[in-house]
Order: sequence, then C-alpha cells, then structure tokens
Amino acid sequence: MRYEQLQWQEQMKIQVDFNHMMTEFIGEEEGFTREHIEALAGKIKDSHQRMLKKSGSGWLEWRKLPMNQEEVVTKIVRTAEEIRSRAEAFVVLGIGGSALGPLAVQTALNHLHYNELPTERRGGPRFYVLDNVDPERVAALFDIIDPAKTIFNVISKSGSTSETMAQFMIVFNLLREKIGSDYAKNIIATTDAEKGNLVKMAREEGYTTFTIPAGVGGRFSELSPVGLLPAAVCGIDIRELLAGAAYMDKLCQQEDVFRNPAYMLGVLQYLAMRRGKNISVMMPYTDALKYFADWYAQLWAESLGKRTDNNGEDVFAGQTPVKALGTTDQHSQVQLYVEGPFDKVVTFLGVGCYRQEVTIPKVFEDLAGIAFLGGHTLGQLIKAEQLATEYALMKAQRLNFTVTLPEINAFTVGQLIQLLEIQTAFVGELLDINAFDQPGVEEGKNATYALLGRPGYESKKQELETRPLKKSEYIL
Amino acid sequence: MRYEQLQWQEQMKIQVDFNHMMTEFIGEEEGFTREHIEALAGKIKDSHQRMLKKSGSGWLEWRKLPMNQEEVVTKIVRTAEEIRSRAEAFVVLGIGGSALGPLAVQTALNHLHYNELPTERRGGPRFYVLDNVDPERVAALFDIIDPAKTIFNVISKSGSTSETMAQFMIVFNLLREKIGSDYAKNIIATTDAEKGNLVKMAREEGYTTFTIPAGVGGRFSELSPVGLLPAAVCGIDIRELLAGAAYMDKLCQQEDVFRNPAYMLGVLQYLAMRRGKNISVMMPYTDALKYFADWYAQLWAESLGKRTDNNGEDVFAGQTPVKALGTTDQHSQVQLYVEGPFDKVVTFLGVGCYRQEVTIPKVFEDLAGIAFLGGHTLGQLIKAEQLATEYALMKAQRLNFTVTLPEINAFTVGQLIQLLEIQTAFVGELLDINAFDQPGVEEGKNATYALLGRPGYESKKQELETRPLKKSEYIL
Repeated sequence: MRYEQLQWQEQMKIQVDFNHMMTEFIGEEEGFTREHIEALAGKIKDSHQRMLKKSGSGWLEWRKLPMNQEEVVTKIVRTAEEIRSRAEAFVVLGIGGSALGPLAVQTALNHLHYNELPTERRGGPRFYVLDNVDPERVAALFDIIDPAKTIFNVISKSGSTSETMAQFMIVFNLLREKIGSDYAKNIIATTDAEKGNLVKMAREEGYTTFTIPAGVGGRFSELSPVGLLPAAVCGIDIRELLAGAAYMDKLCQQEDVFRNPAYMLGVLQYLAMRRGKNISVMMPYTDALKYFADWYAQLWAESLGKRTDNNGEDVFAGQTPVKALGTTDQHSQVQLYVEGPFDKVVTFLGVGCYRQEVTIPKVFEDLAGIAFLGGHTLGQLIKAEQLATEYALMKAQRLNFTVTLPEINAFTVGQLIQLLEIQTAFVGELLDINAFDQPGVEEGKNATYALLGRPGYESKKQELETRPLKKSEYIL
Repeated sequence: MRYEQLQWQEQMKIQVDFNHMMTEFIGEEEGFTREHIEALAGKIKDSHQRMLKKSGSGWLEWRKLPMNQEEVVTKIVRTAEEIRSRAEAFVVLGIGGSALGPLAVQTALNHLHYNELPTERRGGPRFYVLDNVDPERVAALFDIIDPAKTIFNVISKSGSTSETMAQFMIVFNLLREKIGSDYAKNIIATTDAEKGNLVKMAREEGYTTFTIPAGVGGRFSELSPVGLLPAAVCGIDIRELLAGAAYMDKLCQQEDVFRNPAYMLGVLQYLAMRRGKNISVMMPYTDALKYFADWYAQLWAESLGKRTDNNGEDVFAGQTPVKALGTTDQHSQVQLYVEGPFDKVVTFLGVGCYRQEVTIPKVFEDLAGIAFLGGHTLGQLIKAEQLATEYALMKAQRLNFTVTLPEINAFTVGQLIQLLEIQTAFVGELLDINAFDQPGVEEGKNATYALLGRPGYESKKQELETRPLKKSEYIL
C-alpha cells in the first residue's frame, strides 16, 4: 500500500471517545474508573480467547468477510453494472438483517433523496427495501414501480422466512404474468449455498444467485452479498467498504482493551449493564447515519437479549436499544435523557466534516433571538448542538460515548460496521451468552404457522384454539 | 347527527384491550388485578379533578382543539386549496411536535409513496418535513425542489427555535434571490399570536399566518394549525380528524377508569412504572402508523421525563419510549422482548381492516416450507403474526396492550391522537409532575447559544471554555 493511502486511512480512523463514561467527568456515583476496567482483566482475557476459538468454529465467519471475498466481489460488481444499465428500480425482498444493513449503507453513502433524483444524476436504479407484509405497503410499492423494469433481490438464508417468501411468491407470479418466460432475469436470489427452498428454486428456475456463507447470521451479514449487491447496484464502492472493515478488524484484534476500540465500547457497556443501565441509545448527529441506529438496534437486541447463559441458567440478559437522531430528537427525547431515570447509556455518532455545507445568511440582524445564527454554517450549528447535548448529559451525570467518523464515506462506514459487530459479539462473551442464535422468536413463528394452517403445526393450532378467551370487560 | 353516522362512528371506535396486562393472562408475578386498579381510586379521582381544573387554567387548551376551531378550519381549508392549485412542493420547517405530528398524520392517511406518485394521482404538492439542520440533508432537499414553486410553512411557537429559524433564514434569502419581491407568497408562518420573532416578521413581511393558541405546547399541537394545515394541503379531511378527536375526548371525560380508555391505559402504565418497567414500546402492525410511534415517543418522553415532582422533590421520573414496527421488528426486537429483562410494556397498534389487500398466489405447492402461504392474503399473514407475537409475549409473561383501529382513516387517527394525549397528561397527574414543561433542554440550548456566540451568554461561554479537557487516553 502506498504511503499516501496509509496516511489517508489513518486520517479516516473512527474515534471512540469514552471520557464521559469516566468518573472524572460523570462523577463517582455514575462514572467508571480505570480500576473498574482493570478488575475485569481475567474476564476480558477469557472472552478474547473465546472469540479467537469461535473464529474457527463457524460462528464468527462474518469477521473474515472483509478479507476473503475477492472473487465474490468481482461477480457482484459485474452483476451490479449490468443491473445499473438496464433496471429502473431495484427492490430488496428481505426482513431483519437482510433489510436493515442495505438500508443503513444506502442512506449513509448515497444522496438523502436518492430515489427522487433525476435518472441521469442517480446513475442507477431507484432503490427500495420491502421489509414488511403490510398489504397497504406492498400495494403502494407496486403503484410506483414497473415490475418488468425492476430487479427483485430476494434475500433469505433459510428460504423459509414467511414474510420474504410471501412477497417473493407475489412477485414471482406477477413477473410471469407481465413478462412471460423471461421473468427469471428480473430475479436475483441471495441465500444459503445448499440448504432451503430458495436455493432449490433458484437452481431450477435459473436465477442469478449469491451465497450467504455458513457462519454468517442475518444480523452479521451486511458485508456478505446480502449487503454488497444492493450497495454496488446503487453505485457504492464496496471494495472501500470492505477495506474499512478490514482496517477496523485489525485494530480490534488487539487483546489490550485500552487499545481495542470494540472491546472498550463493549467492556464499558457491560459495566453499565451490570449497574442496571438497561437502555442503550444510539444518537447519530447526521441523517446519513439514521438507519445505522436501526441496524444496530437489531444487532444489539437480538444478539444480547437472551433468557439463558451458556450454562443454561436463567439470566434474562439484554439491553434495549433506542434509536434517536440529533438534533431532531433533542426536541423529543433529550428532556428524558437529562432529567429521567439513570437507566441508560447514550452513544453519539458524530461526523468530523460534513460532505456538504450550507451557510446561514446574515438576515434579520435586528432580532436578537436569531441574529447570532447569521454567518455560521449549518455544520457549525449541528456540531455546537451535539457538543452542547454531550455537555448537558455530562453535567447531569449521564453516561455517554462519542464515536466520530472523520467523514462519512465507504471506508469509515465499513469500519463502523465491523466495530459494532465485534463489540456486540464481545459483550456476548462477557455476558457468557450465545450472541448468535434467536430461540425466542420460535414461539411466535410456530403460532403464525399454526394460525395459517401449515401442515405439521396441528398441535400448536389446538393449543391456540383452546387458549383462555380474552375477557370483554378488559376491552374498552 | 344522523343515525347512520352515529352508527358508523360507533363501528369506528378504537378498542383498547388490556387483557395481557392482567394476572389471568400474564400470571400473578407480572400481571395486575382489578384490585390493583381499584386501590388507586383516590389517586385517580384526584388526578381527574386536577385535569378538570387545569383545563381552565391554560395548560390543557389542546383538549378543546377538536371542538373550538370552526373558523380556523375554514381558513385552513381555503388556504390549502389555494396551495394545492399552485404549488409543486410543500415543506414544513419545524422540529419536535411541529414535525412529528404532521409526519405521523401524513403517513397514516396518504399513500405510502405519496411523493413518488404522478402529480395527477397525488392531487396536491409533494410533502417534506425538514426537521434537522444537517447540512447534507438540507442541501439534498434543495436538489429536488424548485423553491419558486414551493410553499414553506415555518412553524415555531416562540419564533426562536434555532434549528427552525436557521432553516428559515436560509429559505428567506433563497426565495428573495429567486423570486424577488413576491417571495412572501411562498411563506406561511405558524406561530404564537403575539409573542416572538416569527409573528413580528410575519406582520412586517405580510406572510399568511396561523396561530398556535395559548396553552397548546409543541407536543400537544397536532390538532392545531400546526398539524391541520399540512394535512389539509395533502388532501386529508381535517374535519373528520377533529371529529374523531372530539368523539374520543367525550369517552375520556368519564371519571370511571373502567369506562375511560385513556385513563385505563394510563393507570396500567403507571402501575407498571411503579414496578420498575422503565421502557414503553409502541409497535404498530402497519407501516401507516410507523411515524405515530415517533410522535408518541416525543409526547411520552418529554412529558413524563422529569427530575422533580410538583413539590420540587427529586423523582427522576419517566419511561423510555421505544418505536418498533410489526412484522419488521419481529426480526429485530422480539427476541429481546420475549427473553430479555422484564422491564417493558409493549403496546401493539393493530388494524381491523387494511385499506388494500394482496393475495399470495398458490405457487411452489411442492415446497412445504412455503406452500401453506399460498391462498392467504397479506392481511391474514400480518394479522396472524401480530396475534402470534402477542401470544408469545403473553406466554413469556410480558405485559402488553393491544390498541385496535377498526380501519385507518381520519376519524380513527383523530381518536388515536386525543387518546394518547389524554393518557399522557393523566399519567403526569398520577406521577404528580408537570407534564407540560421541558426544563431539561435548557442547559443544551444555552450551551449552543454560548458556542455560537449569542450575546448575553458570555458566562456560559466562559464556563464551557474552562471545562475540564477530555483526556486523550480515553479516546481510541
């Protein structure tokens, strides 16, 4: 790598600032000390060792995605170019990680009104993620796209996600009606290499197919073809995304928590959880990262929200993620954060340098309440507000981190993904739980199957039909 | 009122189902009983009396909005018609309640891809809410609108909201550049009747102006011109919205908690808060109500998140609102809700009958994992999933409500607004706090003023400049 490039990467390194987690700033009652962290040395070492061990055992394959996909990336880029040249719209059919990752990256790295730009300025198809089965939403989408000129990327590892497959069945039928035997050209499947309905269909019907590698769970799949294809179709430099993730991964391989940003974020959140802080707020000060808070909410909630630990003991672990947006939610949530219960950790996501700037003109100079704004830029205003909010929280002794991206670009966004994924997995180890499964959603899935009459779910149906009836006196 | 109309209103009544808050369903440890509620009789009576008393004193004027705006509504409808005939875009400049209410109502009652519909189908201007000062976001909006053909509705009661006024200064300058002396025709101000910069400007410059009545705080202002003008511009029947709110208000005037849906929702949330449930999740099973969860998040957080009670004692009250969306967040949050800490109350927002329906075709009949979906509608699927999730939460002994709108229309949305506002105010009384102020945001505001050099904030500036420096060892 050239010296200039290394230097640029260094400049683009994400900063994790945990000053406002520490007693010097937050006070003794709420803050933490170096000693609190050092007292966990054994646990940190253990967790680090377990991470290393798992990395070969199939659960941490997502960590290698930034390093082992050269061939896949070439195929993705080629496919994306072809789609960009012929499609008017690109629709992801997916839910959970298959939707949240693509949405987060698209919003971070493309124009904030991308779909409303003129075609020539956009340079690629309009982009939609259909991550619900609300009939009004699905019907609304079909009002604004022409299926014949749309590529549908159906994403489901198992090929049995009810919401995604229901959407796919509708799209499949519609495409056959509209464009006949050529319909398969408008479908791309992203799924498991071997198992499930979707890979079976894809083979039989001849869809272009991408593989979600083994050991890459839905919420850790953004840097697999799940996220890379949609990003590339929208013109995002996916090699830079992966380079950023690889750069951060290296930083986070260090055992020393005082050098490893993911571990430090994780250890301090873990300490806060142990003190009963059951809420984790992510508050970006940029619309571009708004959907990163959604992506992180799944990662954090589904990975750490677990009834039992690795020994099978009931622990009812988890911290509830909350998505906020600065400055917007200063006018919605900050009153609560400053004055309410001492039950949360706030993570600010800041930006060093915004990609665009707008100056507030010097007008209404005789109105003292607003005249001082004139001459400043919006970038100065939003940064002052972020700093002021951090300061207000600190004064009120409220725990908060600040994670700063020097600029929003593919390299820093890649770093952010890897940073937060490693943090989450590491906290799973500290909590001694399995961060990679989701047993708690089975009950709801099975009840849905039963309600819709899926064969094999008769006893669950029986259970549902004989459940205690709701009391009408409890309905107003 | 005609008999048919009364009957229709009755059919359109929102249902509040609290079965899954009660011991019969949730078990003795987590559930509540009739006795728990009855034990609060004195407190409920007191709170009811205080609500009545406040209603004359200037804090509860928002409760009368559904009943006392005939004249204003006529002016709004006339103005909206004129705008619909000449504008290509309508942009709200506002933040907090001025943004969240208009967004929630627009998303609920208009097409889910409203801005992307062809003009003739939309019948009115495209609609945007600029509720942040992120320069990238502001610049992005100017890429897709033509200011000369856009009406800007600047909303700020005080006329000194920094974010809104900064936007306005930019727009003001831009309009003068683009269309010269006629620029005032593209501006509508919604503000206080007498006080503040904005009403002063509006008079001097001759903007069309609407008034936010006294006693109507930002988060309670959706049914004032703040929300009614944007709604009317987008073709929403604001008289029906108000009729729905009036209908619900009447139901919620009853002192008997077993007849008053807002009081019952409030009392049970209050009981849950007393047991340490510090998180309130709102989870609509419809994209149309997605932004209602955002609107509610402000209402709930800012009203109830208070350091001191009415006697000035430290209470650090508040419950953190969380926005979720069914079915989408079943694949993100439900794992945590079912298996994590017993720290939350979930409120499902359901729909009796979706306004559109899509049938899943009978295809892939040889694939057992998905064939059962064929022949069902998406409405059946999403409702089965809602029921299954409620059921799974109940089985895991997790407190949950279900609030059902028989259909989403202006009448039911009006009901929902009034229901949740009254619930919030009532919980404020139960907690013995002031639900109508927001002292906790002052520190951040003042620090922002100081950082931007506003005259009069020199000592705050001094304070900021001499604050302890962050330690570089706490930055990774």
